[in-house]
Amino acid sequence: MLDLLIRNVRIVDAVGDDCIASAPSFLGVHDGRIACIGLMQDLDATIHAAAKDRDGDGSLLTPGFIDCHTHLVYAGDRAREFDLRLRGASYEEIARAGGGIRSTVKLTREADERALFLASARRLKELMRHGVTTVEIKSGYGLSLDHELKCLRVARLLGERFPIEVRTTLLAAHAVPPEFDGQADAYIDEVVQRIIPEAKRQGLADAIDAFCETIGFSPQQTRRVFDAAQAAGLPVKLHAEQLSNQHGAALVAEYGGLSADHLEHLDEAGIAAMAKAGTVAVMLPGAFYFLRDTKLPPIDLLRRHRVPMAVSTDCNPGTSPCTHLPLMMNMACTLFRMTPAEALLGVTRHAAKALGLQATHGTIEVGKWADLCLWNVDQPAELAYAIAGSPLAGRFHHGLEHAL
Amino acid sequence: MLDLLIRNVRIVDAVGDDCIASAPSFLGVHDGRIACIGLMQDLDATIHAAAKDRDGDGSLLTPGFIDCHTHLVYAGDRAREFDLRLRGASYEEIARAGGGIRSTVKLTREADERALFLASARRLKELMRHGVTTVEIKSGYGLSLDHELKCLRVARLLGERFPIEVRTTLLAAHAVPPEFDGQADAYIDEVVQRIIPEAKRQGLADAIDAFCETIGFSPQQTRRVFDAAQAAGLPVKLHAEQLSNQHGAALVAEYGGLSADHLEHLDEAGIAAMAKAGTVAVMLPGAFYFLRDTKLPPIDLLRRHRVPMAVSTDCNPGTSPCTHLPLMMNMACTLFRMTPAEALLGVTRHAAKALGLQATHGTIEVGKWADLCLWNVDQPAELAYAIAGSPLAGRFHHGLEHAL
Ligand SMILES: [Zn+2]
Ligand SMILES: [Zn+2]
Repeated sequence: MLDLLIRNVRIVDAVGDDCIASAPSFLGVHDGRIACIGLMQDLDATIHAAAKDRDGDGSLLTPGFIDCHTHLVYAGDRAREFDLRLRGASYEEIARAGGGIRSTVKLTREADERALFLASARRLKELMRHGVTTVEIKSGYGLSLDHELKCLRVARLLGERFPIEVRTTLLAAHAVPPEFDGQADAYIDEVVQRIIPEAKRQGLADAIDAFCETIGFSPQQTRRVFDAAQAAGLPVKLHAEQLSNQHGAALVAEYGGLSADHLEHLDEAGIAAMAKAGTVAVMLPGAFYFLRDTKLPPIDLLRRHRVPMAVSTDCNPGTSPCTHLPLMMNMACTLFRMTPAEALLGVTRHAAKALGLQATHGTIEVGKWADLCLWNVDQPAELAYAIAGSPLAGRFHHGLEHAL
Repeated sequence: MLDLLIRNVRIVDAVGDDCIASAPSFLGVHDGRIACIGLMQDLDATIHAAAKDRDGDGSLLTPGFIDCHTHLVYAGDRAREFDLRLRGASYEEIARAGGGIRSTVKLTREADERALFLASARRLKELMRHGVTTVEIKSGYGLSLDHELKCLRVARLLGERFPIEVRTTLLAAHAVPPEFDGQADAYIDEVVQRIIPEAKRQGLADAIDAFCETIGFSPQQTRRVFDAAQAAGLPVKLHAEQLSNQHGAALVAEYGGLSADHLEHLDEAGIAAMAKAGTVAVMLPGAFYFLRDTKLPPIDLLRRHRVPMAVSTDCNPGTSPCTHLPLMMNMACTLFRMTPAEALLGVTRHAAKALGLQATHGTIEVGKWADLCLWNVDQPAELAYAIAGSPLAGRFHHGLEHAL
């Protein structure tokens, strides 16, 4: 007996370099997982009973969207800084008005868990409204043991309270906190000796990330973070090659990393290393757009080396205040010249791999979680073609449909 | 006796070059219009009874958003063309697959009024969901007397069936239809002799527009269209200076036009002419983004000449498949370096002027229509800061609140 039968949908799957919608099909769910898939013409011969019956009315069925790179948990926003900059304020004026990541760190530290939860829940609900069923959430605005763990706890709580799966990433090595001004190495000591082990001990982190950049941490400091992650048995990811080529992609690949993210300045050696290690390239066109970047990530080379490309919002207050993953698909196409099929795989199959979830998420296959989206469109390419469209007609998490 | 009292809102108004939220205020509505405005502290002394009471809970109240430039009524989409181009198809392959404006004209001609209404209603509802209470809708995919009038009738019907105000613009001079291939002047004969007079006679057009461009119509052909509009007593607008400088802005200003739209290649002479005529500059950053344009409109010069700037979606299938006006505010800031205050005035006060509605729409003033939006944000700049955010908490059209 099935828990749910979704009938009369066209199931989207990758075929060659394209994403194709099937003939009218059905999908059965049992115990939150996909139990069977078939063509409507075979329905009566196959399915005898289901507790619930959902008519998809001919709409497209895709895997639930996976947003594999977000900084969703933070307090405040940076609208004032955005405003001041556009009104011609100088760097000093903005700093005086409390701009930059430090303003977010200050507000995030001041916020208690309840306030952080409420602020983040608003963003989470917007992500869900646009089809997200799994989201990665990084810490990185706490920058101390207590505040980093607080942010990870909030992320975990979001996953418990809302019908969405949350994967947490500890990003203590996001920036040097004010109390370690000019002592980045001493802060990395704190990260590797206390924060990573404690996050691991409390089961709060599913992965470890760092910001490897001239204005972030050096490759050598990043290596120390990765060593500590490895010692804790946690997989790694990296903010790499966003503003300059620090060879971070090769570094994270060396550690068998899940993903290297941003990558505008990535070179072919880094790509080859990623290909060999199976490290996913996470494209973040929202930050590229918001920062008016002009250096495009090497999409063609990534294609040639068959590195899987994911697409994500990078949801954060400073460089990508965005909770609209379908818009990121459009930006991946419009700005980065990815194809609509690549963009769709980038928020499903390859996003799952960027989180190490490829065995259970990201495609519509028997045995995987029934995380699914119904879309009111005729062809898969429409999902990337619309600028901030969101023709979501249904959203299922572990086989349960929730109001949009 | 008031029909509606909205209490506890912070009313957004332009102050100098900024948009500021007031102290907690109330707003009373009678007969669909704004009857009174005051501070909460004066509420008891001022207001004695209202049929309905709405607590705004401290949220921001802005004028209802006005999308002053859309091509909302069309059939089909151009997702396939978008897909083919990104997969490296040649121009010929796309033409063979039926790409370009002619594919939209073909599908729009084939569609009956009911099908056109339904397809357009989906887009209209998305606009409304993001705060739009007045929308301009152009024809321009019919390109014959019958089909242009059909599209305008559908636009009028949308305004009757949904709680939104529709202003129609006849854009018969959008492109040369296939049956006039190579005979643009003969098609303009048809436009000025039959289509404009008949649209006027049937009361279907509130304004006349044309596409003045090397790949559109010449300034001389545009002038003929404007002469016919003037003869019919209809105001004019113009798609001007998008791809090259045809001096269309000066031309539409010469006719006292409501607006010149796009304007990437506008020069200072055109700006001076617009300033003198009171012609609004309509910014369409969605098309700029989608076409990966690099030529920025002369925002600074427009500011210096105090030309009012509106911001709009340009909603159309070929160059701006977008129904998200708040995202256009973000793009106006991010891409064009407008300020958040300018972007907000661009979708309210100045958008009203671009439609000739400044006496009754676009600001929160006693006597104007109670077209209003409630926003779940703390400061006006947040509306432009978010990338495709839409924190709409309430939407009133002529004093009636409608579900989002
Ligand atoms: Zn990031
Ligand atoms: Zn247009």
